[in-house]
Amino acid sequence: MSKIPNPSQKNQTNTAIFERRESKVRSYARAMPRKFIKAQGVWMHDSNNGHYLDFLAGCASLNYGHNHPVMKQALLDYIEKDGIAQGLDLYTEAKADFLNAFESIILKPRNLDYRVMFTGPTGTNAVEAAIKLARKVTKRELIVSFTNGYHGMTLGALACTGNATKRNGAGVPLNNVVHEPFDGYFGADVDTADMLEQRLSDHSSGLDKPAAILLETVQGEGGLNAASTEWLRKIAETAKRHGALLIVDDIQAGCGRTNGFFSFEGMGFTPDIVTMSKSLSGMGLPFALTLFKPSLDIWSPGEHNGTFRGNNHAFVTATATLKHFWADDQFQTEVYKRGEYLSARLEKIADKYGFSTRGKGMMRGIDVGSGDIASEVTADAFDKGLIIETSGAFDEVIKVLAPLTITESEMAKGLDILEQCIRNICSEDVDAAA
Amino acid sequence: MSKIPNPSQKNQTNTAIFERRESKVRSYARAMPRKFIKAQGVWMHDSNNGHYLDFLAGCASLNYGHNHPVMKQALLDYIEKDGIAQGLDLYTEAKADFLNAFESIILKPRNLDYRVMFTGPTGTNAVEAAIKLARKVTKRELIVSFTNGYHGMTLGALACTGNATKRNGAGVPLNNVVHEPFDGYFGADVDTADMLEQRLSDHSSGLDKPAAILLETVQGEGGLNAASTEWLRKIAETAKRHGALLIVDDIQAGCGRTNGFFSFEGMGFTPDIVTMSKSLSGMGLPFALTLFKPSLDIWSPGEHNGTFRGNNHAFVTATATLKHFWADDQFQTEVYKRGEYLSARLEKIADKYGFSTRGKGMMRGIDVGSGDIASEVTADAFDKGLIIETSGAFDEVIKVLAPLTITESEMAKGLDILEQCIRNICSEDVDAAA
Amino acid sequence: MSKIPNPSQKNQTNTAIFERRESKVRSYARAMPRKFIKAQGVWMHDSNNGHYLDFLAGCASLNYGHNHPVMKQALLDYIEKDGIAQGLDLYTEAKADFLNAFESIILKPRNLDYRVMFTGPTGTNAVEAAIKLARKVTKRELIVSFTNGYHGMTLGALACTGNATKRNGAGVPLNNVVHEPFDGYFGADVDTADMLEQRLSDHSSGLDKPAAILLETVQGEGGLNAASTEWLRKIAETAKRHGALLIVDDIQAGCGRTNGFFSFEGMGFTPDIVTMSKSLSGMGLPFALTLFKPSLDIWSPGEHNGTFRGNNHAFVTATATLKHFWADDQFQTEVYKRGEYLSARLEKIADKYGFSTRGKGMMRGIDVGSGDIASEVTADAFDKGLIIETSGAFDEVIKVLAPLTITESEMAKGLDILEQCIRNICSEDVDAAA
Amino acid sequence: MSKIPNPSQKNQTNTAIFERRESKVRSYARAMPRKFIKAQGVWMHDSNNGHYLDFLAGCASLNYGHNHPVMKQALLDYIEKDGIAQGLDLYTEAKADFLNAFESIILKPRNLDYRVMFTGPTGTNAVEAAIKLARKVTKRELIVSFTNGYHGMTLGALACTGNATKRNGAGVPLNNVVHEPFDGYFGADVDTADMLEQRLSDHSSGLDKPAAILLETVQGEGGLNAASTEWLRKIAETAKRHGALLIVDDIQAGCGRTNGFFSFEGMGFTPDIVTMSKSLSGMGLPFALTLFKPSLDIWSPGEHNGTFRGNNHAFVTATATLKHFWADDQFQTEVYKRGEYLSARLEKIADKYGFSTRGKGMMRGIDVGSGDIASEVTADAFDKGLIIETSGAFDEVIKVLAPLTITESEMAKGLDILEQCIRNICSEDVDAAA
Repeated sequence: MSKIPNPSQKNQTNTAIFERRESKVRSYARAMPRKFIKAQGVWMHDSNNGHYLDFLAGCASLNYGHNHPVMKQALLDYIEKDGIAQGLDLYTEAKADFLNAFESIILKPRNLDYRVMFTGPTGTNAVEAAIKLARKVTKRELIVSFTNGYHGMTLGALACTGNATKRNGAGVPLNNVVHEPFDGYFGADVDTADMLEQRLSDHSSGLDKPAAILLETVQGEGGLNAASTEWLRKIAETAKRHGALLIVDDIQAGCGRTNGFFSFEGMGFTPDIVTMSKSLSGMGLPFALTLFKPSLDIWSPGEHNGTFRGNNHAFVTATATLKHFWADDQFQTEVYKRGEYLSARLEKIADKYGFSTRGKGMMRGIDVGSGDIASEVTADAFDKGLIIETSGAFDEVIKVLAPLTITESEMAKGLDILEQCIRNICSEDVDAAA
Repeated sequence: MSKIPNPSQKNQTNTAIFERRESKVRSYARAMPRKFIKAQGVWMHDSNNGHYLDFLAGCASLNYGHNHPVMKQALLDYIEKDGIAQGLDLYTEAKADFLNAFESIILKPRNLDYRVMFTGPTGTNAVEAAIKLARKVTKRELIVSFTNGYHGMTLGALACTGNATKRNGAGVPLNNVVHEPFDGYFGADVDTADMLEQRLSDHSSGLDKPAAILLETVQGEGGLNAASTEWLRKIAETAKRHGALLIVDDIQAGCGRTNGFFSFEGMGFTPDIVTMSKSLSGMGLPFALTLFKPSLDIWSPGEHNGTFRGNNHAFVTATATLKHFWADDQFQTEVYKRGEYLSARLEKIADKYGFSTRGKGMMRGIDVGSGDIASEVTADAFDKGLIIETSGAFDEVIKVLAPLTITESEMAKGLDILEQCIRNICSEDVDAAA
Repeated sequence: MSKIPNPSQKNQTNTAIFERRESKVRSYARAMPRKFIKAQGVWMHDSNNGHYLDFLAGCASLNYGHNHPVMKQALLDYIEKDGIAQGLDLYTEAKADFLNAFESIILKPRNLDYRVMFTGPTGTNAVEAAIKLARKVTKRELIVSFTNGYHGMTLGALACTGNATKRNGAGVPLNNVVHEPFDGYFGADVDTADMLEQRLSDHSSGLDKPAAILLETVQGEGGLNAASTEWLRKIAETAKRHGALLIVDDIQAGCGRTNGFFSFEGMGFTPDIVTMSKSLSGMGLPFALTLFKPSLDIWSPGEHNGTFRGNNHAFVTATATLKHFWADDQFQTEVYKRGEYLSARLEKIADKYGFSTRGKGMMRGIDVGSGDIASEVTADAFDKGLIIETSGAFDEVIKVLAPLTITESEMAKGLDILEQCIRNICSEDVDAAA
Repeated sequence: MSKIPNPSQKNQTNTAIFERRESKVRSYARAMPRKFIKAQGVWMHDSNNGHYLDFLAGCASLNYGHNHPVMKQALLDYIEKDGIAQGLDLYTEAKADFLNAFESIILKPRNLDYRVMFTGPTGTNAVEAAIKLARKVTKRELIVSFTNGYHGMTLGALACTGNATKRNGAGVPLNNVVHEPFDGYFGADVDTADMLEQRLSDHSSGLDKPAAILLETVQGEGGLNAASTEWLRKIAETAKRHGALLIVDDIQAGCGRTNGFFSFEGMGFTPDIVTMSKSLSGMGLPFALTLFKPSLDIWSPGEHNGTFRGNNHAFVTATATLKHFWADDQFQTEVYKRGEYLSARLEKIADKYGFSTRGKGMMRGIDVGSGDIASEVTADAFDKGLIIETSGAFDEVIKVLAPLTITESEMAKGLDILEQCIRNICSEDVDAAA
C-alpha cells in the first residue's frame, strides 16, 4: 500500500446520487467530496485511485485504524461459521467472551467493579441510559453538564450538549439540564469547580440538587479542552457531597485516546457511571456500553431496551481488540510516546504563529482563533491528501485524531502537510501584522 | 442442519458471567437462558447442540432469517477486500450502491420521492430525527402519538411510547407528546379518528396544533393492533388539515413484514416522514433511516449527526437484500401466502379457546387474555425448542414473528408446537368452564 | 335608582387615556366602551348618566350584586376604625372571624372537614396552590384536566386551561397536563368517564398516573357545559382508584351560582381539594382560597406564599356574606327558583330558533351556534342597556351571569331585551331558511 | 396613639381557630402569634391592647404606613358613593384617574413611555405576564434570572425564583429558566456580568439565547443584595446585544423603597418591561402592573386576563398616593435622608459585632451570618414590641423594611430595640471569641 498521500481530483467523482437522495444534514462529505471505497490502517482510498492519510479516524472511532488485520480476521471467521449477528439481548458466546475479556483485561487490573449495560449501539444511547439511571437512582431530575460539552443528538443527550446548532435541531426546549462552566472556561485564574460547589451549597442559588454531573475529561467536539486532574477531583467530591452521581462520558476520550483505557485512570476518583462507544469495537462497528457501580443496577428488565443491543459482530471485534492491545502495557506506552511527539510538533507550529495548542494524549489540536482560517487549512490539507477536521464552538480548533496505531513516520508525514498548509494560509497574516 | 427443534437443558448452560457482569436490564435472556453460538435461516443453535426454531426473528429485525447466504457472502467479500467499515457520513461506494438500489428498486416503482437521512443506526434515533424535523419544519412542539405505541427508548422517542415500564425509566416528565386512542381502542363502534379530528378542530380542547402525528400502521410491541386503511386515511387527512406532518414509524411493520416494502403501500396516502430500521440491513446489523419529502429537507449540515451513521457493512447487506428480494413481486407474493396460512392456523387455535387473533401479514398473534397465560405458553414452547415472545400492554399477546423466508413446513412445525402448548395450558380452564 | 336600562351613546365617552396607556390586552372594554362610575345591585352607571342592567356580574364575581349594603357597611365600619388592611399571613381578628364563620356556617353543616389555605387573592393562584399540593402529596407530575376547562393564566394553571388563545400566550410548551374529553364532549352516547377509566387502567396507554384530576362541575368560560352527577361520581371513583386527588375548581360555579355554596353538594362525593375565589368576598374584592382535606396539609411554612394573602378587607366582606346569605336555606331556595325561571325563559327562546341551552342554576346560556351571531346579539343588547357576554370555544354561547340577588322582574327585563335582540338578528335567518 | 412599643403576652391570645383551620403553610404568624385588630402608620395593635412598631410593613407593601389618612379617606368616600369595586377590565373613572395620574406624575417627568397592563393583582401575576410577553415578542423560551432572585410562587414566576424551599413546592421540574450569578455572588473581584456576556457570546456554551433577563436591582427575599449601577448597565447592554428583553422586577425595590419611584431611575438604562405591585396601592390592597415599551404591546385581547384586574379600590388609593407623595421631590428627599440615617445606625451596629450590612435606601439589613442568630434576634425584638423579619438564603439577614413615612424618632426607637437584641444575643459570642 502506498505510503505517500495522493489525492484524486474532485471533478473525477460523480456525487449526483448523494446530492439527489441524501439529506442536506450530511456534513463531513461536503468538505471531502470523494467516493471512498476501501481503507486499511491509516489510509483511505477513493474511487479514482486517490489515497489519503486519515487524521480524523472516524472521529476517534477508529483508534486502531481501518480494518486492522486482527479484528478483520476475527470477524471473517465469525461470519464464515454463521455466528449470531443479531441476538437482541440473548446470551451468546460472543457476548460471554466479550464480558470475560472486559472483566479480566480491563476491570480487574484497574480494580474497577462495574456492571455492563449493552445499550443501543450509539454513544447517544449510552448517554441516555446513563442519565436515565442517574435520575432513577437519585429521584432527582436535573443534570449538570458543561459549556462546550458534547453528548449526543437524541433528546436527553442533546439537552446535555452545548453546541447551539445541534440544540436548535431539537425544536423544543431542552430542559432538566444546566450547563456550568468547564475547567478554564473563565481563564486560568477562575476556579469553576469552586463556583459549582458554591452554587450547590447555596440553598437559594436556583441551582437544584442534580441527579448527576456529566462530563468529558477532554472535550472532543467542544474544542479539545482537557480538564485538570485537580478540577476533576473537585467535581467528583462536589458530586459526592451533594448526592449526585458522577458520569464520565468516555466515548471520545476513552479507549486509549487520552490516557489509559479509561481517560480517568490514575486520577484518584472513580466515576459512578461511565459511557463508552466509538472505538470500543475496534473496527468502527456500532457498539456502546454504559458501565455503573453494581449498587446502581436498579433497572427493571427491559426498562431501557432496543433491537441492536446484541450486535455480536462488534462483540467479536471488541474482544479481539482487548486481547490484542490491552493485555499488557506495551500499546499504552507507545501511544503515550506518539502523543508526546504530536504535542511537541503542534507546540512548535503553534508558537510560530502565536496560536495555542489544546488537548491531551493523542487528542490534540491547534486553536487558530477562527473557524474560517481553520477550515481553509483543513481544505488545503485535504487537497494534499490529509483528512483532518475541526472542532470547538466556532470550529476554530484543528484537531488531530489519528489512529493510535499510526507510526511515527506516518504521523510526521501528516503533520508536515498540516504545517505546510498553516504556513500557506497564516504566513501572510503574520507578515502583514509584522 | 437439523429440521427438528431440539432444545438443550437449562442446567447445561453456565450463565454466571452474565449474572455477574451484565446489568439487570437484560430481558429476553431471562426466559431463554441458553448461550447461543450460531444461527442460520430460521434456526438458532446453542452451546450444547440444542437448536431452536426462531419465531422471534430478532423482534422482526431478521425478516430474511439469520445469516442469509446472499447477504453473508456480500459482507464477507466486502470485508475481505478492506471495504470501508466506518465512514462517518463520508461518501462511500457502499452508500452510493445502497442509495441507487433504494431509489431504483424501492422508491421509483412506488412513485415515492423521499430524501434519505442516515441517522444513528437504531430505530429510536430515526424516530428522534423524524420528530426533530417535524418540529423544525412546523415550528410547533407537540407530537400526537397513540395508545400502545412503541417508538424507542431515548428521551424524545420514549415520550412517544405508551408503555409505563419504559416510561418510568425516564425519571423526568415526558413532555410535548399526547397519546390519543389508536384505531379500535374503544371498541369497534367508536371511531377514534373522528375523535382526534374533533379535538383538533376545537379551539378550546386543550390539544395544541401538533407538529406531527406519529403512528405505526400495525403496533408491534403494543399488541399487534392493525389499523384499518380507512382509519389511517382519515388520520392522514386530519394531519394535513391541521398542518401537521404524518410520520409512519415503519421500523417493525415495514421491510415486508405486513404489506409491501412499506406497510402503507396502496392505502391511498403518502406519509411525510417514514422511519425504517430493524430488517433494513437484512442481516440484523444496526442500520436506520429517516425518509422525508424533499421539501422538508431543511436540516443544517450536521444538525443531527452521530458517529455510526456510516455503517457501511449494513449498506452492503441492505443493498444485497434489495436486489435479491425486492427487484420483483415474487418475494412479496410468497410472504402474503405465508401470512394467510399463518392467519388461518391462528384463527383456528384462537377459536377453540375463545381467544382472538391480532395483526396482519406475517406479524400476527393470539391474544390469550392474560400475560400469565401467555408467558406460560411461551415458556413451554421454549422448552420444546420454539423461540417465541409476547407483546401488548400486559404481555397478553403471543406473537409470531417468524422470518419471512420461512417455509410452510417450518412454519407448520412451529405452529404445531404453539398449538400443543396452548392446549396443555388452556384446556384445563376450558374444561373447567365447560 | 332608575329601573329601566338607559344606555348612553358611545361618542359621549372619551376613552383616549385607555387607548394611549392601557395595553392592548384589554378585552371586555372593547365591546362596552363606556366609562363606568358607580354601581349598585344589578345596575351599573356610566359617566353620561347611562345605566345598564348587569348580566355579567364581574364574571360571576358579584353574585350578590354591586356594593351590597350589608357588605358595604361592614367594610366602611372596618376601614373607619383603622382595621388592618394588609396583614401578610399574620393572625388578625378579621381572619379569625372569617374562619369561624366559614367553619360554622359552611363546613360543619355540610359535614366537610377542610383546611383553609389563603393563597394569593386570585383564582389562578388558588389553582396553582392546588396542583402544587397534589403533586407534592402524590409525588406525581401529571394533571388531568378537561376539554374547554378554564383555570387561570399563570403558567401552572394555564397548562390546565383549554383555550388556544390563552395557551398561545405562554410562549413555552404547557407541560405536565393532559386534557381529556369532558362530559358530553363526544355526544350523549359516548361516556367519557369510562374512557378515562380505560386509559388509566391500561399500562400501555401512554397516560401516566396523574397527581390529580382537575375539573369544573359547570364549565364557565368553556361554554356552560354542566357535567352530570353520574359522570362526576365516576370521575371521583376513577381518581380514587388510581391514587389521584380530585380537585374541584369551584371558582365560577361555587358561591351559590349553580347549586349550594359548593357546586358539588349532595352529589355523593367529596373532592380532595377545592378552589374558591370570585364571589367569595361578596363585593368583588380580590380573595381566593384553596381548601383540602387535613391529611393533605403537608406544606412547609411559607412554601407557597405571597404578599396579599391577608386581604383583610375581603375577609370582612366575606364574613358578612356568609352570615347574611348562608346562615339558613332561604337564599339558596330563592336562587333555585330564579334559576328555574331563567331556564324556562331560555328554553323558550332557544326552541324558537332551533338553538340549545346550556348550564345549570344561575349559570345558563344559549348556544347560538356561531360566535359572530352571539357577538352581534350581545352588542345589540349593550346598545339597549344590557351588559351580557359570551363564552365557549368559539364564543358561541350567550351567557346569563346575573347577580343571584336579582329580582324576578329585573331578570325578566333583561331577558326581554335578550329575546328581542335574538329576534332582531336571528329571525331573518330563520325566515330565509323557512 | 401610644408611641412606646408595648407588646402583649403570647398566652393572652387564643389562636385555636388558626391552628384548627388554617393550612400549615402559614409562616409569619408562627413567630408572631398575636391577633392583630387595627393599625395606623407604623403601629400595629393586637387584641390585648399590645402595640408594635412595624419594621416589616407588609413586606414593603405598606411603604406609606398602615391606613394612611389620605388614602383611607379617598377609599371611604369612594365606597360611600357606590364607586365600582370590581370592574373586570371595563373602563372606569377610577382607572382613568389612575392612568392619568400615572402618566403625568410618574411617566412624563421621567421621560418614560410605558404601556400599562393591569394584571391579576399579585406580584407573581405581573411577573408571569412579563415573561409571557417577553417569550411572545422574542419567540424564545429561556429566561435568565439570578441567584437569590425572588419573583413569585406561580409556576412561571417560581421557575425564576432561587429559593429551594419555594422551588420544592412545585412538584415538577422548573424549566425554561437559568439562574446566573448576581452581582457580587462570587465576591467583589469576579465580574459576573462579564461572565454572562461571555456565555451568551459563546455558540457552544449550552446557554441558549434568552427571551429576557429578569432581575431585581436590590434582591429583597434573597438577602438585600444591591446590584451596582455599573453591573446593571452591563447587563442591560448584554440583553440588548443578544436580542433579549430586560425585565426589572420592581415589586419590592420600587415605589420609593430604594431610589426614586422606580429603583432604576438615573442609572442610564431603561428596562423593556417593569413589574410593580406591593406598595402600588399605597394601602396594602392587592394591585399589580406590568409596564412595557409600546412597541412590545403585541398582546391579543384577553390573552392574559383574570377576574380581579379591575380592583378599583386599589386604583383609588393608588391615585391618592401618586398625588400626595410623588407630585414633587419632597417625599423622595426625606426618604433618602431616613435611608442615610438607617444606614449609619446599621453600620455602627454591624461594626461592633463584625457583621456586614446589606441593601440600599430604606431596604437595608444586617447579615449576622446565621439564620439561627437572626431568628433569635427577631424573636427577642418581637417580645419587645418590634415587628422585624429576616431574609437571605439561610434567613441570615435581619432586614429593616419600615414604612417610608416613619419619623426619625420612631426609627430610632426601633433601631434601639434591634441594637439591644443583637447585644443580648451576640455579646456572649463576641466575649467568648475575645
